Amino acid sequence: MDPVEHLIALLSRLPGLGRRSARRAALRMLADPRALMLPLSDALRAAAEAVTPCGICGNLDATDPCRICANPERDQGLVCVVEGVADLWALERAHAHAGVYHVLGGTLSALSGTGPEELRVAPLLRRAEEGPEGGGVREVILALPATVEGASTAHYLQDRLAGAPVTVTRLAQGVPIGGSLDALDDGTLAAALRARR
Amino acid sequence: MDPVEHLIALLSRLPGLGRRSARRAALRMLADPRALMLPLSDALRAAAEAVTPCGICGNLDATDPCRICANPERDQGLVCVVEGVADLWALERAHAHAGVYHVLGGTLSALSGTGPEELRVAPLLRRAEEGPEGGGVREVILALPATVEGASTAHYLQDRLAGAPVTVTRLAQGVPIGGSLDALDDGTLAAALRARR
Repeated sequence: MDPVEHLIALLSRLPGLGRRSARRAALRMLADPRALMLPLSDALRAAAEAVTPCGICGNLDATDPCRICANPERDQGLVCVVEGVADLWALERAHAHAGVYHVLGGTLSALSGTGPEELRVAPLLRRAEEGPEGGGVREVILALPATVEGASTAHYLQDRLAGAPVTVTRLAQGVPIGGSLDALDDGTLAAALRARR
Repeated sequence: MDPVEHLIALLSRLPGLGRRSARRAALRMLADPRALMLPLSDALRAAAEAVTPCGICGNLDATDPCRICANPERDQGLVCVVEGVADLWALERAHAHAGVYHVLGGTLSALSGTGPEELRVAPLLRRAEEGPEGGGVREVILALPATVEGASTAHYLQDRLAGAPVTVTRLAQGVPIGGSLDALDDGTLAAALRARR
């Protein structure tokens, strides 16, 4: 296959790049391969070879345990459960969480056939059951998406964690900072009203 | 530097990918590096090493001369002058041109200081001056963008080609196929009216 066509076909499989932008990107890079094309090739290989899931939390990093789990300044007793690594990164960018994480790898979904075995539920229960006594977990924060699947997954985890010596909390729901009421969906408005303080 | 951060920084320099989509693309690839990440790394390197500008027309291809210049079924006497390789590819996708091309590499612009020496003007003049007698060029089609720079570049080339034994033509301007008059800019409407047949 023609190397340019092959490159465009692969580029267009990146999320956010259609066939048209893949063509533009390929052309831009081909105009001066040393500027971006060869460095990007190297960076893709380097990341593919270096990055592994953290054995503790499931984060993707070049070290295992990841830099968050290995950081003694993070509160190892405060575990924030997220659906995926993207959510973990978002919380890190917000500097919102001083503890550590647990990446679930998805949410429960009868529709797509995702059960507890497909997710990292068992490792979470193990972490929680060590409890504060074992130098382990004190609180589990369920930071799952505010969708039907996210809510039912949170509900399921709350059930499973009921016997463990940890406090289980959930993210607050309500009006986003800077959000005008007018632009919000009805569900969020109703939830914010119910959860008024 | 962290390999993931480095990868995201390079990905976000691709046209069409912002920092946010670069992050999404990196995460998606890291989830299964064998699926897309390593093939893309190889494809980037392969294309960077194989692809060169065609010595005749300036097209980017894995062979030199490119497959269009080397194709005996293309009309080598009919040369279509385009601003860049992207325009050449667009004409090829449209199967609109049975001849060959000449990639100018830009348009004249006093603002950005692009003069004839920065563009592939001299090679075009050499191609044109061989004329039909030398088995060379019969007609030069100026397919430059319908912008101020494109128009002044076309004008300049028409002047320079005046002495060569070739016919110089330009793309027709007018209403795009499927274009509603209502959505068109005034300049296109006026040009289409002036060029009525």
